[in-house]
Amino acid sequence: MNKGQFIVIEGIEGAGKSSAISVVKKVLTEHGIDFINTREPGGTPLAESLRDIVKSADHQEILTQETELLLMYASRSQLMANRILPALEKGQWVIGDRHDLSSRAYQGGGRQFNDELMDTIAQVTLKGFKPQLTLYLDISPELGLARAQARGALDRIELEKIEFFHRVRNKYLEIALADETIKIIDASAPIPVVHNNIRLAVNEFLKNH
Amino acid sequence: MNKGQFIVIEGIEGAGKSSAISVVKKVLTEHGIDFINTREPGGTPLAESLRDIVKSADHQEILTQETELLLMYASRSQLMANRILPALEKGQWVIGDRHDLSSRAYQGGGRQFNDELMDTIAQVTLKGFKPQLTLYLDISPELGLARAQARGALDRIELEKIEFFHRVRNKYLEIALADETIKIIDASAPIPVVHNNIRLAVNEFLKNH
Repeated sequence: MNKGQFIVIEGIEGAGKSSAISVVKKVLTEHGIDFINTREPGGTPLAESLRDIVKSADHQEILTQETELLLMYASRSQLMANRILPALEKGQWVIGDRHDLSSRAYQGGGRQFNDELMDTIAQVTLKGFKPQLTLYLDISPELGLARAQARGALDRIELEKIEFFHRVRNKYLEIALADETIKIIDASAPIPVVHNNIRLAVNEFLKNH
Repeated sequence: MNKGQFIVIEGIEGAGKSSAISVVKKVLTEHGIDFINTREPGGTPLAESLRDIVKSADHQEILTQETELLLMYASRSQLMANRILPALEKGQWVIGDRHDLSSRAYQGGGRQFNDELMDTIAQVTLKGFKPQLTLYLDISPELGLARAQARGALDRIELEKIEFFHRVRNKYLEIALADETIKIIDASAPIPVVHNNIRLAVNEFLKNH
């Protein structure tokens, strides 16, 4: 039995991650591939309780940037040990709604934690593990946030200022351009075009795996 | 107004931290010093919810060592920002039931995370802050755990093997012997002797502060 592959969808709010994930699922299903879904932060009972803490906009106390960073990686550690690695070992594929690249972009780029610290915490949590394919949906913060806002109430992180999301996007692009396992998808294109590009990227990956 | 001072009580299970804290409170009260109490992990609503996760022995999923480490520091970050630093700024003293030294001993010593990693995470969380006085209650794991067991059900960490607690104690001693702000109290002595030594250590500290 082949080992499973880990495909991650990344991007800022309003980039269209949910519908992109639907497309990836459809392509894998067409190829008869067995997969599970994950989302981060979250994905196990314990990690979901950490997600609630990180996302909630109505804390009675200051949530520090350090707590946000540490809880993101605690959540990731639980998800890795209890869902992602066991699935891949069994030969299942994993489709991830966000993974480590989100922390690099939001906590590294947005919150400006330095690369050395991010590398250290990522290393202790992931021990060098990384997704085989990441689809990064690139969109301007102005357009993405307008879409997210039209969708409903924003969570604590989504309430950040526009400059925060510019730093997040810049970090996404900086890392994506230097890593050939990350494909940049123009998420401002018409939806059928975006979906076709996702389909092409996944099919290209399937040819080689 | 003088800035408050931070006094921490440390030691393994059954070392007698609770009654030591009562002695410290009594001495500060005798000197008319205004203080608050903290405990770690915990001490704020958010940190207490992390404490519940870390301590609970009946998780449906594997709690990784990395999650334990990250949640300890997330809890500490919340406690620092929301209780310890504001109290010290107001001139209140803080009596801490555990602080960073516990992570050094349990996660560094017990779980064997390396010193460089521990330094990195402590630095991002505490930014160089440390207690002015720490009383480390030293006791053999055999004696301490027997006492803790007599007290009732053990939590997830207390259920570790005896070798774990030997590593914890060794790390406590290693750090205490190299840091003059940490006083080692022999917690295997008769209780009146232990309490008198705590009283002497606090009075000595008060003379100089």
